Amino acid sequence: MSQPFMFEKPVGMRDRLPGYFQAKDAIRRSTAGEMEKWGYLTIETPTLEYYETVGSASAILDQQLFKLLDQQGDTLVLRPDMTAPIARVAASSLQDQAFPLRLSYHTNLFRAQQREGGRPAEFEQVGVELIGDGTTSADGEVIALMAAALEGTGLKDFRIAAGHIGFVNALLVDVLGNDERADELRRFLYEKNYVGYRYHVKQLPLSTIDKNRLLGLLKLRGGESVLEEASALSSHPQAKKAVEDLKQLFDVLRAYGVSELVTLDLNLVMHMSYYTGIVFEGYGNNLGVPLSSGGRYDELLQKFDRPAQATGFGIRLDLLAEALQPSEEFPEPSCIVFSKERRAEAIAEAVKRRKNGERVVLQDLQGVESMDQLSEAYTDLYYYIGKKKEADTHE
Amino acid sequence: MSQPFMFEKPVGMRDRLPGYFQAKDAIRRSTAGEMEKWGYLTIETPTLEYYETVGSASAILDQQLFKLLDQQGDTLVLRPDMTAPIARVAASSLQDQAFPLRLSYHTNLFRAQQREGGRPAEFEQVGVELIGDGTTSADGEVIALMAAALEGTGLKDFRIAAGHIGFVNALLVDVLGNDERADELRRFLYEKNYVGYRYHVKQLPLSTIDKNRLLGLLKLRGGESVLEEASALSSHPQAKKAVEDLKQLFDVLRAYGVSELVTLDLNLVMHMSYYTGIVFEGYGNNLGVPLSSGGRYDELLQKFDRPAQATGFGIRLDLLAEALQPSEEFPEPSCIVFSKERRAEAIAEAVKRRKNGERVVLQDLQGVESMDQLSEAYTDLYYYIGKKKEADTHE
Repeated sequence: MSQPFMFEKPVGMRDRLPGYFQAKDAIRRSTAGEMEKWGYLTIETPTLEYYETVGSASAILDQQLFKLLDQQGDTLVLRPDMTAPIARVAASSLQDQAFPLRLSYHTNLFRAQQREGGRPAEFEQVGVELIGDGTTSADGEVIALMAAALEGTGLKDFRIAAGHIGFVNALLVDVLGNDERADELRRFLYEKNYVGYRYHVKQLPLSTIDKNRLLGLLKLRGGESVLEEASALSSHPQAKKAVEDLKQLFDVLRAYGVSELVTLDLNLVMHMSYYTGIVFEGYGNNLGVPLSSGGRYDELLQKFDRPAQATGFGIRLDLLAEALQPSEEFPEPSCIVFSKERRAEAIAEAVKRRKNGERVVLQDLQGVESMDQLSEAYTDLYYYIGKKKEADTHE
Repeated sequence: MSQPFMFEKPVGMRDRLPGYFQAKDAIRRSTAGEMEKWGYLTIETPTLEYYETVGSASAILDQQLFKLLDQQGDTLVLRPDMTAPIARVAASSLQDQAFPLRLSYHTNLFRAQQREGGRPAEFEQVGVELIGDGTTSADGEVIALMAAALEGTGLKDFRIAAGHIGFVNALLVDVLGNDERADELRRFLYEKNYVGYRYHVKQLPLSTIDKNRLLGLLKLRGGESVLEEASALSSHPQAKKAVEDLKQLFDVLRAYGVSELVTLDLNLVMHMSYYTGIVFEGYGNNLGVPLSSGGRYDELLQKFDRPAQATGFGIRLDLLAEALQPSEEFPEPSCIVFSKERRAEAIAEAVKRRKNGERVVLQDLQGVESMDQLSEAYTDLYYYIGKKKEADTHE
């Protein structure tokens, strides 16, 4: 086989070598362990789903979906997120279980990429979904859980930004009159293109008062005091409700002792179109992109015929590993090299050491490519070679 | 959305609910932990690979591959096994590391199924590859490791069947003269269709002596004494070498203390066409299908331009979970239900208990769908409701 693709991987696909794997696995265990302590139960769903079932509900751009045809001619997708699959399970296999359901997952997600060097096309995510609970206690719970999970990994300097889609929507529709116009501005916010947003607002055929209200949205960032400014900007009932939700959220976060980590950002607009209420993102170690994000999605479950209010979040393990910059060094095992005459003795020694919890490589001398590289690879190298009965230690 | 596919999953795809997930996860940790103690390092490879790179090297039937086109028009496959991807990594990212390499993985594999109700189209496998070591010590090591990994899960009554592809091939080609005819008989052996094998042999235009040699192969099952019978059946150099390999293998297995678990089965033919030497399967708890399988593949690595002898095995976690029939009951967390007035108090209590390692669900009364179902779901239910300051315990 001497093909152009011999050593290639598809665009956006990565191999993960032992050091990185070990570091990521430690992060996964730590975050998953926190979710378990909060009473979340882990489930798994298939890598492949019907496009009609979760592909369309997932609200990922169509061009980012990996699609294939099965042998029956139906279109399948590699799951691009876990919220829609978990909603499907909540409405089918778990339909007899009363709400609220607390579910967690750690799994790989897939988003097709146009070119190499950019974002990964496959990445691991851990997360939770709290389904069937519309209280701000539930919003607060998932934010506090996200903070605890991130903190447990040793992540320093992390911050949470929280907003409310209901507020943004109410203000935009209130001023602009219809959802289509609102959509244009929402896109600027989602792209965090505030220059574009300002420019676009200035072009709009609106009164100065209305333009200032739209521009005022950009200033709604900071501590709880921002909520008073927000109240002044819109008297729309949905905006009032959003401000009240966020006030209550801060009460909950204070009780958890995490309110200091949270900054209000009423410009926050997420790419997932299914969000309906409080939304949030986690940042850490000066990484420019969010390590985690989530929010309330009260309308998704009704697509699966079991209407329910719900909230949840996902933590990107690849980005968190990048932010933590863990040592990728792996504590090396010791190594016993043996020649055939002393094989039984060497095996007995390895069995004994492994029983004691030691990590031991056992190596037949005849299978060694280069003794130099072997003695470089292992600091603790023991020889069971030739006729003699005592083991030598080689430094 | 009220589509025919609303709750459906693609053919052969499964949801895994918390009890099953927990049981499987415990098995994964146990088996992976054993591999770590033997000095194997875990790596991850992408779910999607180029068809040209590992799809064709994987030797899985083409109709069992999930294939898709990427945006560049190249054919991708969902990995059907891990041996070929690990060979790719050994020959590329790990090319500077001297042989032998000891690598392990736990991952999902994909094999498209024609109809529902049969085999899963996605299943989890843990396994190892020991690359660059042609000794029988290496063959013995992976079999002993497989035994230790299975034993560590609590599996009872497990047996290992071991054979040698070199012996089967030598005998068949020796008697039949060419590989094409041998292939027909190999297929019967792979399907364990011994009636078909006998029938086919009887139809062949061969001397009675040669027919008896071919039929004699079927009797080569049992303890080490089988090796003498095997010697008598073929004097082909490859057959002699195979018998010698298996003799040495038993020496190694005795040193590991696992020879009693191993039965020789010189009819053993695996579906993966890349096997070249000693092959083996693990059985347990009277499950008719092998829980694990592996063997030597000395020719695969040269497809990736880094020729090396190699051996390894994979354990099917889904089948092992089935064989173990673990309790799928999950130790339930306790639950604190609170009303708004006592939210802060309830949160403080939950935080305290979780710090002590307890699993605690915290639930706002307003988010409860049915108090009856809640008190059914949790035996340890604590109320923080109304104005009073003391917590009640509800039985």
